[in-house]
Amino acid sequence: MKTVIFRGPYDVAVEDRPMPEITQPTDAIIRIVRSCVCGSDLWCYRGLSPYTVGDGLGHECIGIVEQVGPSVASVHGGELVICPFSFSCGACANCRNGFESNCGAGGCFGGPDGLAAQAEYLRVPYADGTLVTVAESPTREHYPDKLLAALTTLSDVMSTGFHAAVSAGVGQGDTVVVVGDGAVGLMGVLACDMRGAARIIALSGHEDRQRLAVSFGATDIVASRGSNAVRDVMALTDGVGADAVLECVGSKQSTETALAVARPGSTVGRVGLPHGAELTAASTFFRNVGVRGGIAPAHRYAKDLIPAVMSGRIHPERVFTVTTGLANAPDAYRMMDQRTTVKALLKVSEI
Amino acid sequence: MKTVIFRGPYDVAVEDRPMPEITQPTDAIIRIVRSCVCGSDLWCYRGLSPYTVGDGLGHECIGIVEQVGPSVASVHGGELVICPFSFSCGACANCRNGFESNCGAGGCFGGPDGLAAQAEYLRVPYADGTLVTVAESPTREHYPDKLLAALTTLSDVMSTGFHAAVSAGVGQGDTVVVVGDGAVGLMGVLACDMRGAARIIALSGHEDRQRLAVSFGATDIVASRGSNAVRDVMALTDGVGADAVLECVGSKQSTETALAVARPGSTVGRVGLPHGAELTAASTFFRNVGVRGGIAPAHRYAKDLIPAVMSGRIHPERVFTVTTGLANAPDAYRMMDQRTTVKALLKVSEI
Repeated sequence: MKTVIFRGPYDVAVEDRPMPEITQPTDAIIRIVRSCVCGSDLWCYRGLSPYTVGDGLGHECIGIVEQVGPSVASVHGGELVICPFSFSCGACANCRNGFESNCGAGGCFGGPDGLAAQAEYLRVPYADGTLVTVAESPTREHYPDKLLAALTTLSDVMSTGFHAAVSAGVGQGDTVVVVGDGAVGLMGVLACDMRGAARIIALSGHEDRQRLAVSFGATDIVASRGSNAVRDVMALTDGVGADAVLECVGSKQSTETALAVARPGSTVGRVGLPHGAELTAASTFFRNVGVRGGIAPAHRYAKDLIPAVMSGRIHPERVFTVTTGLANAPDAYRMMDQRTTVKALLKVSEI
Repeated sequence: MKTVIFRGPYDVAVEDRPMPEITQPTDAIIRIVRSCVCGSDLWCYRGLSPYTVGDGLGHECIGIVEQVGPSVASVHGGELVICPFSFSCGACANCRNGFESNCGAGGCFGGPDGLAAQAEYLRVPYADGTLVTVAESPTREHYPDKLLAALTTLSDVMSTGFHAAVSAGVGQGDTVVVVGDGAVGLMGVLACDMRGAARIIALSGHEDRQRLAVSFGATDIVASRGSNAVRDVMALTDGVGADAVLECVGSKQSTETALAVARPGSTVGRVGLPHGAELTAASTFFRNVGVRGGIAPAHRYAKDLIPAVMSGRIHPERVFTVTTGLANAPDAYRMMDQRTTVKALLKVSEI
């Protein structure tokens, strides 16, 4: 089967790999329908993550269940399922508490263990605790392209944006700042809109992303960065700062900006992988600014968000600014690396 | 008037100072009825804070309003008032949001500016935004010693413990860990009990404080420290950790312990002044553990908690293990420094 393979920095290729097989009684095999390229895949692409030449890539997908192991109870052949970017046992305390991304038995798709989601087929460990069923017998008629794309976002990017908003405690009537105009930040804007924020200030210096942010519910755009962005947000909020802030980048500068525009009593919900970000007492404790968040429990959010997607209340699929086939994955990586596209959807097969 | 004065490390004395006077139209002068010694006063006592010889000390008190400036509207002569440890304008966005401790025009009592609360009289800036009225015409009969002591805790220690519980999001049925068996930690235990925590695990290695913790609602005591405390809490929580954690010390070790016993999805509410505490990505982000808190908005909590004190629902005055006169303040400092008492109440005058 075809799989996207890491060949070295700035070099991915679509290669043949053996079909995955059930290795544990709790496994399932899914035929992938849609996959996509994540901002975090670019860390690998750029040679900044500990990937080895030959590793399979990708961790976001939806698919059709092909086969289940003998212990799998809640997932059945033929079902359309969302496969969150991390697998989880579904039984431990963290899973029961809705923090499946912290399951002690779990792990992430993509990487050296052969569980690549930019591929034609995928072995899913702990199928019962991992997969989220959308439909028992999906038909092409009821699941057009847009809907499949929207469902694909629940496997990671939309769930991660939503986790930022939940972690920040975004509520009805709030003024919110979203730091980061990548796909996760844009989904964060949508999540704030869903949660009733009255004012959503999106930080973005790129016109195409500004337009997308507005389409997702942003009411204000701040195009500046760093201390200028802080000044501009403060000017927009009467010098007070925001009731909640979403940090969707993880860099030192973005984190400092997020903390600085958060008003005393508010919380920064962060989902950007921290690299160089420091939480000082001056920026948190002495301003009564909280910090929450982490790796999103996409399993829980996928379940919670399916109704909003199915009803057409939200259109997270707009985050995909390119749609192409699995064979063109190298182009998709290139475009995302050069920021000429926000996020690329990969059509792998049809239902 | 008598005032407790910093004479140098491990040396405080009660000296005569001029009576305070109204200097701004928004000021009030109060006659102090009860004051007390705070754990944070010990930083000064030990020579670790930037105090100068001759500075007046203390920031927790209740009193009777003696005089108000011409602009003061909501506070009147003769009223029994709680004076929070920080003063605040009452009009800015942070004050209106209930974070008076982050008021841009505000500041703390005690220190070089002559606003010492371990004294017979005190000038209170922004009386309308700072003072919390308990009674218009208090009588000795209705305000016995115990009640005055309980009200005094609202000026700082009980409000600070409550802020830890609120910041940690302690709710009905939660399992909570309280790190720190000082006066603030003990008030944190009481706050968790008030908020309906089902299980309150107090970390304390001292029998007298363990007994107090139990009297405030602790259900379990862990006497070990550091990694042993983490091990013991984990054993008590089936290896999961707590639903909420209160950090009431601020040291590197106590903060690390607090973060380590917090389960994924929970929040550490911290009120201990951070000294050496680091919030790493590994202990927060990758465990989905949040951190909130800071300097408590005692004005808001004092208002909120008066009914619980007046009705006898809570008895925070039990935290005072010594009661003495203002003249004996040097002994009170000595006992608290040597941890032979939890917290000392200073009787200054009577109503």
